[in-house]
Amino acid sequence: MASKRPLILVTNDDSIFSKGIRSLINAVKSIGDVVVVAPDSPQSGMGHAITINDPLRLDKTDFLEDIEAYSCSGTPVDCVKLGISEVMHRKPDLIVSGINHGANTATNVLYSGTMSAAIEGAMEGIPSIGFSLDSFDSQADFSVAMKIVEIVVRETLENGIPEGNCLNVNIPDVSADDIVGIKVCRQANAYWEDRFDQRLDQHNRTYYWLTGDFKDQKEQTDTDVYWISKGYATIVPTQFDMTSYSIMKEIENWNL
Amino acid sequence: MASKRPLILVTNDDSIFSKGIRSLINAVKSIGDVVVVAPDSPQSGMGHAITINDPLRLDKTDFLEDIEAYSCSGTPVDCVKLGISEVMHRKPDLIVSGINHGANTATNVLYSGTMSAAIEGAMEGIPSIGFSLDSFDSQADFSVAMKIVEIVVRETLENGIPEGNCLNVNIPDVSADDIVGIKVCRQANAYWEDRFDQRLDQHNRTYYWLTGDFKDQKEQTDTDVYWISKGYATIVPTQFDMTSYSIMKEIENWNL
Repeated sequence: MASKRPLILVTNDDSIFSKGIRSLINAVKSIGDVVVVAPDSPQSGMGHAITINDPLRLDKTDFLEDIEAYSCSGTPVDCVKLGISEVMHRKPDLIVSGINHGANTATNVLYSGTMSAAIEGAMEGIPSIGFSLDSFDSQADFSVAMKIVEIVVRETLENGIPEGNCLNVNIPDVSADDIVGIKVCRQANAYWEDRFDQRLDQHNRTYYWLTGDFKDQKEQTDTDVYWISKGYATIVPTQFDMTSYSIMKEIENWNL
Repeated sequence: MASKRPLILVTNDDSIFSKGIRSLINAVKSIGDVVVVAPDSPQSGMGHAITINDPLRLDKTDFLEDIEAYSCSGTPVDCVKLGISEVMHRKPDLIVSGINHGANTATNVLYSGTMSAAIEGAMEGIPSIGFSLDSFDSQADFSVAMKIVEIVVRETLENGIPEGNCLNVNIPDVSADDIVGIKVCRQANAYWEDRFDQRLDQHNRTYYWLTGDFKDQKEQTDTDVYWISKGYATIVPTQFDMTSYSIMKEIENWNL
């Protein structure tokens, strides 16, 4: 007997063992039938990486109790592909990714495994949403984020998302009393000012460790970085067509 | 004595040992001062991945003879970040990535390490170009591609690329007689129809290997996939602002 409830694929990039994905599952399991396919280890910063040159493992796990769940050795995008192709054998009605430990505002959308899973979902024609909480704390309080998840998921299932797009939802790390609302806005043009820690290993060979500071461009007021700082959850509609239509004419005038 | 020649950072995703990157170096070394920072092993499909949880190695190599070159244990985006921060200690005038063995047309821009290096360059405010040849052959003939590289690099250095953008250049695998011209066009909405080979290892445990077919949407005539099939090299101006401005109003009308 087929269920009339929506079929929801849940994934993330912090791994199946993170508090964020358990919070996401708990927020959506009353709305639909949930299947989890998530990385077996942290995959933050993996962007839209896929595993081409190595085999992938997919293991059914019962640690989420009543939820059908699989841990996967691959990236978040691998999880989406394997989930649809090998676990569900059909397209789910919705893909949700997260809740990420740490905001994916601004250009972080490009580095984020959480958002890349949602973008992959959009590429496969499935309404998809990435959720991120603005806190890197592994024990962060996801209760406000879970309320935002419920609202955005219900509206997405009701209205659909236009083809070619997914949603990038970021939630401020504030209490229920302090969240101001939800803003639809654009991706900020903030960036990482990279630094590398240069160290020596036990054989006196140099190695480098990526670090850096996130730099907002302060004058922007209509962006995800701006609104989240004002206590709003933000929704950036995100497309996978990266063509810069506005500069095509300029390049056409080159001497090619 | 400072050189007046442009400083060019060269990288790729097929590794520093590929024929494609040697062809790219040979195409640009008469135009500027070249520094190579490229992966020490193949990084195809790594997308915009960065290495956060592991140390990075960077080793000077003399196998490219008169060219200053470093192999890096990280992803193409790591190579760009390390190249600028630890090798050059300043922003180069140009970043070129490739020449990729295999086209990066359509949505492949999202999976491609080659293109992600160029996108990272754009995010750091540097004119950046990814080049790809429509052939996976490790011994492919890059002579036509090298001519296209020269043309596009000279025009880029002459005109610059508007902020927030880079160029995605794809070259058909044809002879010099058969290349028709260069088209500025948009990213096709083609996609991969995924399949996984399911196999058993020596312990009878299942593993999966990603494969699939690239599916063009045939009706499109103004795209990179279309024009490359007609014998044109294609230039897709590519932006890292993924905001879908056209659907913002629609989402704002939701009951949020």
